Amino acid sequence: MARDEIKDLADEEARSALRLKWGEVPAGTVPAWVAEMDYAPAPVVTEVLREAVEAGTTGYPPFGDLGVGAAFSGFARRHWGLEVAPEATVVTGDVVAAIRLALDTLCPPGPVVVPLPCYPPFRVVVDLCGRPLVPVETDPDDDEAVLDLTAVEQAFRAGARTFLLCSPHNPLGRVWTRGELEALRDLTRQYGVRVLADEIHGPLVLPGSTFTPYLSVDPTAILVTSASKAFNTPGLHCAQLVTLDAGERERLRALPMPLNHAFTTFGMLATTAAFTDGDGWLAALVERLDGQRRHLADALDDHLPKARMRPLEATYLAWLDLREYGVDDPAAAGLRHGVRVAPGSDYHPGLAGHARINIATTPERTRLAVQRLGAALEG
Amino acid sequence: MARDEIKDLADEEARSALRLKWGEVPAGTVPAWVAEMDYAPAPVVTEVLREAVEAGTTGYPPFGDLGVGAAFSGFARRHWGLEVAPEATVVTGDVVAAIRLALDTLCPPGPVVVPLPCYPPFRVVVDLCGRPLVPVETDPDDDEAVLDLTAVEQAFRAGARTFLLCSPHNPLGRVWTRGELEALRDLTRQYGVRVLADEIHGPLVLPGSTFTPYLSVDPTAILVTSASKAFNTPGLHCAQLVTLDAGERERLRALPMPLNHAFTTFGMLATTAAFTDGDGWLAALVERLDGQRRHLADALDDHLPKARMRPLEATYLAWLDLREYGVDDPAAAGLRHGVRVAPGSDYHPGLAGHARINIATTPERTRLAVQRLGAALEG
Repeated sequence: MARDEIKDLADEEARSALRLKWGEVPAGTVPAWVAEMDYAPAPVVTEVLREAVEAGTTGYPPFGDLGVGAAFSGFARRHWGLEVAPEATVVTGDVVAAIRLALDTLCPPGPVVVPLPCYPPFRVVVDLCGRPLVPVETDPDDDEAVLDLTAVEQAFRAGARTFLLCSPHNPLGRVWTRGELEALRDLTRQYGVRVLADEIHGPLVLPGSTFTPYLSVDPTAILVTSASKAFNTPGLHCAQLVTLDAGERERLRALPMPLNHAFTTFGMLATTAAFTDGDGWLAALVERLDGQRRHLADALDDHLPKARMRPLEATYLAWLDLREYGVDDPAAAGLRHGVRVAPGSDYHPGLAGHARINIATTPERTRLAVQRLGAALEG
Repeated sequence: MARDEIKDLADEEARSALRLKWGEVPAGTVPAWVAEMDYAPAPVVTEVLREAVEAGTTGYPPFGDLGVGAAFSGFARRHWGLEVAPEATVVTGDVVAAIRLALDTLCPPGPVVVPLPCYPPFRVVVDLCGRPLVPVETDPDDDEAVLDLTAVEQAFRAGARTFLLCSPHNPLGRVWTRGELEALRDLTRQYGVRVLADEIHGPLVLPGSTFTPYLSVDPTAILVTSASKAFNTPGLHCAQLVTLDAGERERLRALPMPLNHAFTTFGMLATTAAFTDGDGWLAALVERLDGQRRHLADALDDHLPKARMRPLEATYLAWLDLREYGVDDPAAAGLRHGVRVAPGSDYHPGLAGHARINIATTPERTRLAVQRLGAALEG
């Protein structure tokens, strides 16, 4: 096996590797729901974990970051031409913990704007932080998923002072253009709004689109990200909060330990290895996902012809508008026909007829998933 | 190497394995501070981690507990004759997260009684939960570290309705007798107080003492524990909250994911393996720590003759009363002489002349640590 090859997991392998995605579906059901990939981890990740196990590195993480900040700094420079100092990174347990920390510690008080659909924990964490959430909806009938800046400005006028950006967007699969992000930035400057940008899918931009890190548009933003999505390691727990303001970092690092201690030694080691030596494997992954995107389009043509889907520009999560089939909850219908996709209403409460499908698997499984969903909706 | 032998880590091995304990001391300094052991993990733990790495088990933890509850159930029955149903366990990221969850979700409102000295995050987490803390001090001059039930009752009378018990006690090294725990229980019943018992050191009771699980005295208590202390795996993040009340478990399991999601797949697998197949290794460890306890006594006689120390009945953390030397912060003095111990005032704010020394290492390192501390205090 070449180091930069994507290794597909057979069903029984996937059940060992992906205890949530494959463990929480009935036997025989195609799991196309939670955001994990049916591929073996990058060899650089496996190697560093293997070394850590043999060395017995099961002790507490150190006070430092085990190279995570420096590794991300190099990754951001090579991939996006973004200069981020190594010390700009504060390690956290995961992106949701980083968002909570940022909201509680760094963001201005008041309501938080969250574009919908959104990753469901966004709504939970805004609520946990005691912040009112101001949703800005993407019109499901629009041909392109753009940010409704009129609605955003209305929210700012009404007092919202934090904007929770997901870029590239999950579940819409959009890569925001520099122009769009600059327009958002201009608006936030006008109203004194802080942007909190979750860019966990940044490394998973597919050919044809260009990723603009929000920090390159607005250096006052707060970035939260993790290697765990692109490198398939969410079970290891390591993410990062990045702010270019040294004083803010000092405040974060001075927080009592129980507010930010959910990261693991293995997760930090894996992150550093992935961001440092994972470029070749990541390139192969992006090529593979580009292929999966074509397979999805073919399968939709054949088995779900009435599905509407905007171009998938990033991520391996496709947002399907299935309203033409007249089924409120296509995911529930799919589950009865041997496929588990994620219900659209988890991402956009009240929105019927949508689903998110995970295509980070084999062409065969993607086709089977779509076929079964088609049977469920035509049935 | 026999499976049930304790493998000492050489200095360079310890630096790889224990990134906090060994990484955060100047070169040449003996690290005898944070609660980690200078021993290789149990082979059963290494084996399950090795398998997990080879299988690429880096995905999200499943909704279930990967056998943690059942494994703890068997462990508690074999070691303490305690019957705890497998489903009584709710997995958490670590003991501090479990305490926070219990305080926020299960414990009655109002002040929390915390005996001093205590593990420092206890105080932080009580504060984070917005609870007033009522300290109950152990008189440093008492020959035996007993619980001051008069002060406890006073706190209950004044309105405290939660008691945070550390059993066996860190840093006092006490194993509470059944009689002491029953007296506490009677008092809590009288005043309607809930006991939250951290028993992470329960498996580390040394010969001569008998551990009484608090649930065997009071089944309405909340237990928080983890395999991570006895098996030296705190960097993996897995602990447990145990309540015998099914309704409470349901409430905990229904909480939004960001409130309890900091546990890892590797941590769960390691915990299950340790609690299921780790008895032989644990017995060897306890025997080893018993030996270390004797080495400590000898070294104190030789190098710190004015130290007062109550019997170390459990844990590998000894509480030293060094007030006779007239040095307010013996840990700071030690650091200047090549040994890092934990300052007593971290555990008991305002208490001068105390330190906690970690003896889970080789006899040579323990002797060297004591010798250097002696030099620092005599100097």
